Amino acid sequence: MAQGHSEEDRKTFDVVRRIFADKIPFNKILGVELESLSYERAQIRFAYREDLVGNFVRGSLHGGVVSATLDLTGGLVAFLSALKSMNGGTPEEKTKRLANVGTIDLRIDYLRPGLGRYFIASGHILRAGSKVAVARMELHNDTDEHIAVGTGAYLVG
Amino acid sequence: MAQGHSEEDRKTFDVVRRIFADKIPFNKILGVELESLSYERAQIRFAYREDLVGNFVRGSLHGGVVSATLDLTGGLVAFLSALKSMNGGTPEEKTKRLANVGTIDLRIDYLRPGLGRYFIASGHILRAGSKVAVARMELHNDTDEHIAVGTGAYLVG
Amino acid sequence: MAQGHSEEDRKTFDVVRRIFADKIPFNKILGVELESLSYERAQIRFAYREDLVGNFVRGSLHGGVVSATLDLTGGLVAFLSALKSMNGGTPEEKTKRLANVGTIDLRIDYLRPGLGRYFIASGHILRAGSKVAVARMELHNDTDEHIAVGTGAYLVG
Amino acid sequence: MAQGHSEEDRKTFDVVRRIFADKIPFNKILGVELESLSYERAQIRFAYREDLVGNFVRGSLHGGVVSATLDLTGGLVAFLSALKSMNGGTPEEKTKRLANVGTIDLRIDYLRPGLGRYFIASGHILRAGSKVAVARMELHNDTDEHIAVGTGAYLVG
Repeated sequence: MAQGHSEEDRKTFDVVRRIFADKIPFNKILGVELESLSYERAQIRFAYREDLVGNFVRGSLHGGVVSATLDLTGGLVAFLSALKSMNGGTPEEKTKRLANVGTIDLRIDYLRPGLGRYFIASGHILRAGSKVAVARMELHNDTDEHIAVGTGAYLVG
Repeated sequence: MAQGHSEEDRKTFDVVRRIFADKIPFNKILGVELESLSYERAQIRFAYREDLVGNFVRGSLHGGVVSATLDLTGGLVAFLSALKSMNGGTPEEKTKRLANVGTIDLRIDYLRPGLGRYFIASGHILRAGSKVAVARMELHNDTDEHIAVGTGAYLVG
Repeated sequence: MAQGHSEEDRKTFDVVRRIFADKIPFNKILGVELESLSYERAQIRFAYREDLVGNFVRGSLHGGVVSATLDLTGGLVAFLSALKSMNGGTPEEKTKRLANVGTIDLRIDYLRPGLGRYFIASGHILRAGSKVAVARMELHNDTDEHIAVGTGAYLVG
Repeated sequence: MAQGHSEEDRKTFDVVRRIFADKIPFNKILGVELESLSYERAQIRFAYREDLVGNFVRGSLHGGVVSATLDLTGGLVAFLSALKSMNGGTPEEKTKRLANVGTIDLRIDYLRPGLGRYFIASGHILRAGSKVAVARMELHNDTDEHIAVGTGAYLVG
């Protein structure tokens, strides 16, 4: 991942990785890990765990786990899209920028029960504005079943 | 709450309370508790906790905590609306019905940062169909600031 | 309506009324008229016409007529909310501002078939930001049946 | 289009074409024409016209034209998905089925101003349930610029 990017870009992605892993408490509860990262796309991964279940008969993921992981994936690509338009900038400036990224709204469509050993949420940018970014997100399981899709609008400026 | 309801209704609400409290693992992570319950409305409550934070600079709730609590509140009122149309029915039948309620889609609008000592999510039914119910949800904090609104469509039949 | 507003406000509302009535071609096709106007709320009205029908068996409004009238009502209150934050400003500046208001996204929930002699769409502001405004909209018919609800995010800055 | 389909399928598509062209009054106002049709996908086309404009400064399509054309494209693929699951059935039965297809909810994301000589709206099925179908829709102009995306949930059973 991140092939074809400059040294500067790789440093930026490292900042994002550290924030993602260490600074967002609820991400730890969800157990999400960054899989891949570029200025236009990102993928995260999380394992099935019994405490993430919502439907106790089927054993499928809580709808809130689906919406939470898709929201954070969309916010991540919105942030990356905003970073791309910053020329230079220190890690502190980039961290500050992230703190100002906020979800305006989110739509999730639930397509299939959230069953699987692990799940991949992927996001890409549909609209990269100076104030608002729109991202599309998808959730698949380890057998590539399509669990859910989402769209989010994010304030980035 | 549940005033003006029959003995039968009160038993039904007790079943719902027990399922809500004991059977949905992710509800425990969120720390949600049922505040009030009727066939048309429901309120849940959860406390602010540091591990529910998404924005580490502001200390505000993760967007996924907001979407998760609004989704479960909408699903709860959709289920209650479905129960209302069941004449009689054993606790087992009602539990089974709940297991079949599923979110079709969800929209969340984030209005203000999720800050507060505790939060109340309330939901009511906009459309009570035999197959699909539509619910509207709101999230307020302990000083009655309006944090977020949502709308969800739920499969109930 | 618009009671309690200053002379300056009334002039602003007159500008909005003229733009609404004369400058937006598709509004004429829909046959919409402004009913009431303030900085936080607006109502529009349109008559049932056979060429607005989508469901030829029921004779109900085309879903697109519902989404179009709710979108324009939301855009109108978003624009009014943006005007409120402009101190002074000429009619030309206000018209220019309107030209920059754009819908970011829109969600419509269809609650009942669009049947009636006429329809009222009303909108109010949920979030009045400097860059993004969020509006909620409702459509009722002449017997006050609730036909649809909507939420829209609008770029206003 | 419709390659690889049986004689029975082609008759079904002809029924759909006739309904689309003759029976839905608001489709004529929008000027939409069917471009292609199968059980999983559909495309419609409409020309730019001055009376479809919403933004009089830019000359771009009214947001309601975008939401209307995406909604009808989504409803069309939802209907086709429902037809696929009907074994046989007379044209009358198919027409009746169409009359019962209804939009539950719709989300539209506006990506770029609606400018162009003509526009293509395309839709495909994300979830083909017996009661509810979920469709994704896209609008492009004649130079293949991406104007808008949408998602709709449709009652089909």
